[in-house]
Amino acid sequence: MCKECGCGVTDASEKKAIEVFEDILKYNQFQAKHNREHFEEYKIYAVNLMSAPGSGKTTLLEKTLDFLKEKYRIGVIEGDLETERDAERIRQKGVPVHQIITGSACHLDAALVHKAMHHLPLDKIDLLFVENIGNIVCPSNYELGTHLNVTLLSVPEGEDKPEKYPLIFKVSDVIIITKIDLLPYFDFNLEKVKEQIKKINPHSHIISLSAKTGEGFEKWIELIETNINEYRQRLS
Amino acid sequence: MCKECGCGVTDASEKKAIEVFEDILKYNQFQAKHNREHFEEYKIYAVNLMSAPGSGKTTLLEKTLDFLKEKYRIGVIEGDLETERDAERIRQKGVPVHQIITGSACHLDAALVHKAMHHLPLDKIDLLFVENIGNIVCPSNYELGTHLNVTLLSVPEGEDKPEKYPLIFKVSDVIIITKIDLLPYFDFNLEKVKEQIKKINPHSHIISLSAKTGEGFEKWIELIETNINEYRQRLS
Repeated sequence: MCKECGCGVTDASEKKAIEVFEDILKYNQFQAKHNREHFEEYKIYAVNLMSAPGSGKTTLLEKTLDFLKEKYRIGVIEGDLETERDAERIRQKGVPVHQIITGSACHLDAALVHKAMHHLPLDKIDLLFVENIGNIVCPSNYELGTHLNVTLLSVPEGEDKPEKYPLIFKVSDVIIITKIDLLPYFDFNLEKVKEQIKKINPHSHIISLSAKTGEGFEKWIELIETNINEYRQRLS
Repeated sequence: MCKECGCGVTDASEKKAIEVFEDILKYNQFQAKHNREHFEEYKIYAVNLMSAPGSGKTTLLEKTLDFLKEKYRIGVIEGDLETERDAERIRQKGVPVHQIITGSACHLDAALVHKAMHHLPLDKIDLLFVENIGNIVCPSNYELGTHLNVTLLSVPEGEDKPEKYPLIFKVSDVIIITKIDLLPYFDFNLEKVKEQIKKINPHSHIISLSAKTGEGFEKWIELIETNINEYRQRLS
């Protein structure tokens, strides 16, 4: 019986859900480890891009391709509930891309990424970007086996988001504050937000940039290139 | 064995997850119906506010309270992963509010709302707002028993969101396009977005407004008041 009003509701299904959820996460970890083995077999450096809807993941990716596609062989996995729109935007840059359409699933998991990666020419890829579903809750629970987890936070979303959605900031290696060209129009204190992120995740790298004006973008490119070099040295 | 690379991965846990998910949704529908009975018992008109993080749910609510709190007795249920920030903002308006902190849960469900409503003085409330978790995927699956489901889409999120996240637009009675004062700074075609929403959900009311400048806000207030009146007539 429900404590509040005696309505006969029990929480049995809640307990069952927690058990199954734990199973799913265990299975996902296993699959993520397997993905990582694939990446290392093919010497692919893999990056997971996460954020709320509209923080600018695809735009960041387009501009990143402009900077890096002549230097590295890049592949992209796109995740969306519906449409091939993002894949089409990326395809125009001339790199191999596979779109995952989840229907109603709120995050990519390692199994979805595994299936998608087998649609890409893995032996012809140095750098793989996985663009996750626009959601800053669920993707934080699902490792994909990527080497770098990146979360974007755009200025229009507001400075309270790291404190309100801490988990995704905790599991990310890099936080990119995007759309900084919009700072004059929003009540968004960049230094305060950086401090909040550092409190939640002291080991994170924080980069602020505008993909529109290019301000700060070189720091992101530099970070990716440094990481690829370190990765290659480790594997050689 | 995994079809792609023979890695030994099966999808057994996926099937189990689908079964449990169906159980959870069934239980949620039962609980949502029970919530609705509570609302009607107390003649409370209940509104579920959904959106991505940072679309302006709390700001819309603050301004709505300014317009309506002298005319109706209003209560608020706030949902967040962490912090009492939003509840504190609403409390300053002098209305009863209860904060649900979900920890890691990505949506409110009917059981959480049920528990929260019993922390509010139900016999002293005419109009209840439930502010959902900032997420435009998961909340669309969970009815709360509310009379009106509202989704906000802010101009900075981009005009492609209805097509990429159709489910939440399908289950909403009202779509509010927020932050229209920012239209000059974004590539966001208001008429095109309205058309897209109408294709996904022909029965939805679409309102565009700026809580900052007040433009269009009267249409939202008018809609709420009309709905409350119709609700009261139906109950009397």
